[in-house]
Amino acid sequence: MSIKAIVFDAYGTLYDIQSVASVTEESFPGYGDIITQVWRIKQLEYTWLRSLMRRYEDFAAVTRGSLAYTLRCLGLTYDGGAFERIIDKYLHLDLYPDALASLTAMKHKKLAILSNGSPDMLDALVRNSGLESLLDATISVDAKKIFKPSPDAYTLIEQTLKIPPPEVLFVSSNPWDACGAKAFGLNVAWIERVTPEAMAQACAKSDLVTPLTMFKAIRTQMDELGLKPDYRIHALSELPALIARGS
Amino acid sequence: MSIKAIVFDAYGTLYDIQSVASVTEESFPGYGDIITQVWRIKQLEYTWLRSLMRRYEDFAAVTRGSLAYTLRCLGLTYDGGAFERIIDKYLHLDLYPDALASLTAMKHKKLAILSNGSPDMLDALVRNSGLESLLDATISVDAKKIFKPSPDAYTLIEQTLKIPPPEVLFVSSNPWDACGAKAFGLNVAWIERVTPEAMAQACAKSDLVTPLTMFKAIRTQMDELGLKPDYRIHALSELPALIARGS
Repeated sequence: MSIKAIVFDAYGTLYDIQSVASVTEESFPGYGDIITQVWRIKQLEYTWLRSLMRRYEDFAAVTRGSLAYTLRCLGLTYDGGAFERIIDKYLHLDLYPDALASLTAMKHKKLAILSNGSPDMLDALVRNSGLESLLDATISVDAKKIFKPSPDAYTLIEQTLKIPPPEVLFVSSNPWDACGAKAFGLNVAWIERVTPEAMAQACAKSDLVTPLTMFKAIRTQMDELGLKPDYRIHALSELPALIARGS
Repeated sequence: MSIKAIVFDAYGTLYDIQSVASVTEESFPGYGDIITQVWRIKQLEYTWLRSLMRRYEDFAAVTRGSLAYTLRCLGLTYDGGAFERIIDKYLHLDLYPDALASLTAMKHKKLAILSNGSPDMLDALVRNSGLESLLDATISVDAKKIFKPSPDAYTLIEQTLKIPPPEVLFVSSNPWDACGAKAFGLNVAWIERVTPEAMAQACAKSDLVTPLTMFKAIRTQMDELGLKPDYRIHALSELPALIARGS
């Protein structure tokens, strides 16, 4: 492959969405895990449902709506301060520990983010995490008013970077996003963060599971959508060698 | 309201999708609940993802793909016979106990189903459950090659029944479907089968939850999509009185 640009999904790929659990647990002791998982599951559902219903609202609105759903569903009462403290964590998510070094090792290529996040959210996140100087572009689907995996969202890569899909490697840990990018025609590296063995073990004969296990069961294994990513890796740290081999 | 037709969602509304749990448990002892819930969650996800990716396959294919995902995710091995026995249950789902009497009480109106199901699946289900003689039409989204809540799917009601949206009452227990129908312009009765109180109680301070509780937490409470159904009822049995009041 002749890869000129590497484009990353943000939430769950460069940034650890599980890092909100400290704040959710602090605000609602005993509920941290279930809030974190239901919130994320609903957040993505709302991006798909709003896209299909042609009722786009940006990711900031979707993130607030899905958190409001989650707290209501759990029967939790709260004041505006608690809500805002949790939401604010979305602008300060932890980078995966290997993100900074991996991006630095590939900075001879064009590097960018393509994310569902709204421009304001992404700008704050990139700035707060110190990725600003490493990225050539931070692209939000907001320009198209539709969320991934709509093909319209992935067209923004070429529109912004002026590099056609065959010369782009798209990196995501989200199976549905990896499939969407592949369906669109990008080269795709999928980060399999939860191995099939670990997954099967966590679910073994369990009538009771943690909310995190249920989240993993529905969102971390490669989907059956008739598509296959080009590369299956296990961490961002594998990318520099993959790129070096290919170019 | 002047309602001339009552159109029902099928899966989860007239038919109890939880009724597959007997077969999943029999085939995979100890795994019945988690298979049932992950399968249904993924089945719907795949309808939305395929619709957004413009990679439509019919609901029979989506139902098979989501079951294959579920069994792989759980690390279960199986032969084709076990797979087919589970799939076959989708053609023999139990009606909710009040379905037959409620439909019979309203048969002076046009009655129909609008479902994601493929024509073959729906025909078998309707025949096997004895609803055939009560329904004026069984409408599959397959004619539009896109799933609910795309507006295109809901256009099929008027196309088939020749009754415009303001004279149709759409009935669904699926919050996302109730919202999609409302966004399209139909009158909507949402069946709230799990009360907020029961939901909150099931999730109370639990680090460990059953897969069914997680399913309920993400799919039974009214969504935050900026839309509100016209009527909130708790069972199909409330419909005849609602219709009698309104017409």
